[in-house]
Amino acid sequence: METFVSEIATEKGVKAPLAEIEPKKRVARIPTISREVRLVSRPHGLPVPDNFTVVRVEVPPPGEDQVLVRNLYMSVDPYMRGRMNDVPSYVSPFQLNQPLDGAAVGEVIESRAPGIVPGDIVTSRLGWREYFVSGMREVRVVDRDVRPLSAYLGALGMTGLTAWAGLNLVDVKAGDRVLISAAAGAVGSIAGQLSKMRGCRVIGSAGSPEKVTMLLKELGFDAAFNYKDGDLPRQLKASAPDGIDVYFDNVGGEMLEAALSAMRPNGRIIACGAIGGYNDETPVSGPRNLHLFVTKRLTMRGFIVGDWFDRMPEFVKEMNAHIAGGGLVMKETVVQGIDRAPHAFVDLLRGGNIGKMVVKLTKEDSGPGHVGE
Amino acid sequence: METFVSEIATEKGVKAPLAEIEPKKRVARIPTISREVRLVSRPHGLPVPDNFTVVRVEVPPPGEDQVLVRNLYMSVDPYMRGRMNDVPSYVSPFQLNQPLDGAAVGEVIESRAPGIVPGDIVTSRLGWREYFVSGMREVRVVDRDVRPLSAYLGALGMTGLTAWAGLNLVDVKAGDRVLISAAAGAVGSIAGQLSKMRGCRVIGSAGSPEKVTMLLKELGFDAAFNYKDGDLPRQLKASAPDGIDVYFDNVGGEMLEAALSAMRPNGRIIACGAIGGYNDETPVSGPRNLHLFVTKRLTMRGFIVGDWFDRMPEFVKEMNAHIAGGGLVMKETVVQGIDRAPHAFVDLLRGGNIGKMVVKLTKEDSGPGHVGE
Repeated sequence: METFVSEIATEKGVKAPLAEIEPKKRVARIPTISREVRLVSRPHGLPVPDNFTVVRVEVPPPGEDQVLVRNLYMSVDPYMRGRMNDVPSYVSPFQLNQPLDGAAVGEVIESRAPGIVPGDIVTSRLGWREYFVSGMREVRVVDRDVRPLSAYLGALGMTGLTAWAGLNLVDVKAGDRVLISAAAGAVGSIAGQLSKMRGCRVIGSAGSPEKVTMLLKELGFDAAFNYKDGDLPRQLKASAPDGIDVYFDNVGGEMLEAALSAMRPNGRIIACGAIGGYNDETPVSGPRNLHLFVTKRLTMRGFIVGDWFDRMPEFVKEMNAHIAGGGLVMKETVVQGIDRAPHAFVDLLRGGNIGKMVVKLTKEDSGPGHVGE
Repeated sequence: METFVSEIATEKGVKAPLAEIEPKKRVARIPTISREVRLVSRPHGLPVPDNFTVVRVEVPPPGEDQVLVRNLYMSVDPYMRGRMNDVPSYVSPFQLNQPLDGAAVGEVIESRAPGIVPGDIVTSRLGWREYFVSGMREVRVVDRDVRPLSAYLGALGMTGLTAWAGLNLVDVKAGDRVLISAAAGAVGSIAGQLSKMRGCRVIGSAGSPEKVTMLLKELGFDAAFNYKDGDLPRQLKASAPDGIDVYFDNVGGEMLEAALSAMRPNGRIIACGAIGGYNDETPVSGPRNLHLFVTKRLTMRGFIVGDWFDRMPEFVKEMNAHIAGGGLVMKETVVQGIDRAPHAFVDLLRGGNIGKMVVKLTKEDSGPGHVGE
C-alpha cells in the first residue's frame, strides 16, 4: 500500500503542506449517496481485504434536530481489531454486515439542529463512511481554524488524550526515565514528546531504522532502538543503562518482560495496549518475571481512554498550548479514499504507519461542499 | 515431620493452651554455648537437609550497651528462600557458612544496655540461633503480657503487617469481593480476617480439604476452594460468581491468570508474593491474559513490608484492638527445637503449615532462664 506522511507542525507553529480543506459557510449540494465500509466476516489473525466490503447507501435528508455531515478524515486505530472479534469487551463488538464506526472529523453540509450551521467542523464516532445524518448530540462542534483538521483524530483527539491520560495515571514527572514501546505510533509519539516536556529522559522502541531515526532526530527522544533487532534486554540496557522508572506499554509480550527486568524500584507501568497480541489466535504466555512486582515494588495500571473524557477540556487546553508553542510535532500517515480504509487499517496493525494513521475521505483537490466521487 | 497447631485466640479473648513461657525478672544462668543454623550450600529447587547445618558456638558476655538474649521463638518465612539464592534482591542473600537470620522473639538474660533489664521480652532479626549478644538498637522491647509471645512473629509481627499493608495498599473496603491465595497461610489467614472485618466478601484458595474447612469454619471466609482440585477458573467462578474486585496474590502463576479472568472492572491486585515459583529452577511463563489490564482497567501493586515499618504503631494499635475484641483468630503451626528449624522451613515451602509457622526454641516445659539442652 502506498502511504504518505505529512509533517504538520514545525518549530514555529503549524503548517499544512498538503492541500487542506478550507471550510466555508455555504449550503452544499445535498448528496444522496454515501459509501461506507462494512465488516462481512470476522478476521482470524491479521484481517484480510475479504473481511470488508464497501457499500453505497442512500443518505436521507436530516430530520428535526439532525445534521448532515460530510466526513473529511476518519481514524483507524488498533483497538478496532478487538471489536472485530465477537467477544464482549469494554466496547461492543462490530456487527457483521453493518458499517464499522470510529472517530471522524467532518463538515456540516445541512443542519436542522439549533446552533449548528453548514460549514461547521464536527467530530463524531461515525467514521468509516463518507456522509451521515445524525442527531445533534452525536456530533461535537470544534474550532474550525485548527490545522490540519485531522489533528482532531490525533494529538487533539482520542490518541492524544490516551497519551496524556497514561502519563497522568502514574504521575510521570521530571527526572523519570520513561520507556515507550510502539514509540513511533500515534499514541507513543505523543506520549514521548509530552514526557520530554515534563523533563523526563525518554527511550523509545520502534520497528524500523527509519522510525528510530525519526524518534531521535525529529521527536527529541534521548535514545531509541529497533525491537526487530532482537535481544531486547541488551538493547534496553544500552539505551537505559540506569534502568527505567516508567514503562508506557503499547505492545505487551516480550517487551514487557524486558521492561520489568530493567525497572528501577517503585517503577510504574502504564498498560495502554498490547497490539503485539491483537491478532494472535492463541494467547501467548506472559512475562516470566512477574515476581519482580514484589521485589521492586512495581505498579501496573491499565486504563481506557473513555474514562478520561470528562477531562477533555483540561487536556485540550494543555495540548493547544503545546501546539501553539511549536514544541509538539504531530506526525501522521494519510491514506486517501474510503475504498482504501481497510488497507489502511491492516497496514496500521502491521506497523506501516508513522504517527497517527488517518484516512482522508475527500480528494486532495476538493474543497468543502464538493461532492466528489 | 511432626507439627502441631495451637489455636491461640478465642471469641472471648486470648488463651494459651500450650505451656507458655512466663518471663520473670531474674538474672539467669549465663550460657556460653548456643546452637545456630547455617547455610552450607545453596538449594536447587526445594531445599534439602544437606543445605543446612546446626553449629554450636560460644556466646560472649555482653559488652557495653549490649544485651544477651535467649530466643524463645523464631520465624520461618517464604521470603527466606529467595535469600538462599546468590542473587541481589531487596534483602541481601544469605552467606554460606554463616548463620541464617530472620525474625525472632526472645527474653533478655543479661543487659548492659540502659533501659533494658533481664526478663524483658524483645523482638529482633537474629533468629535461627538460640542465644545472641547484640547492640541495644538491634532489639525492640515489646509488651511481655501478650500471649502467645509468638504472636510477635505472626499477627503482631511482620506477617500481620504484611497482610495489613497489602490491604491498605489498594484500599480494600466494605463491599469488595476479595480473593486470597495461600489463604490458610500466615499472611493469607490474617488478610482474610482483616478483609472480613472491613465488610468484604472473602474467598480463599488453599491446598488441602482441611485448610478449606478451617477457612470456612474457623476464620469466617465466605467461600473457599482447594486449588489442587484443578480447573481454577471453574472453581473460582463457583466461589465468586459475580467476579472479584481484589486479589491478594501470594502465589503467582496459574492462580493469577484465573484471578485476572475473574476480575471486575477497576479491580486491584496486591502482589505480595509468588511462593509457587520460589523453588523453580527455570522461571515459568506468566499469565496469558495480561491484556485484561487494559480492558478491565486493572491495577497491580507490589510491595515490601519493610517499607511499612514506620506505620508499625498504627498497625499494632489496630491489631491489638482486634485481638482484644476476640475477633481475630491467630492460627499457628509450631515446630519444636532449633535442630528442626530447617525441616520447618522446608515444610513451610511445601505448604505443610496452617497459619504462621514458628519454631519454638525452648523445651515445652522450660521457663525463662532455664538453659536447657
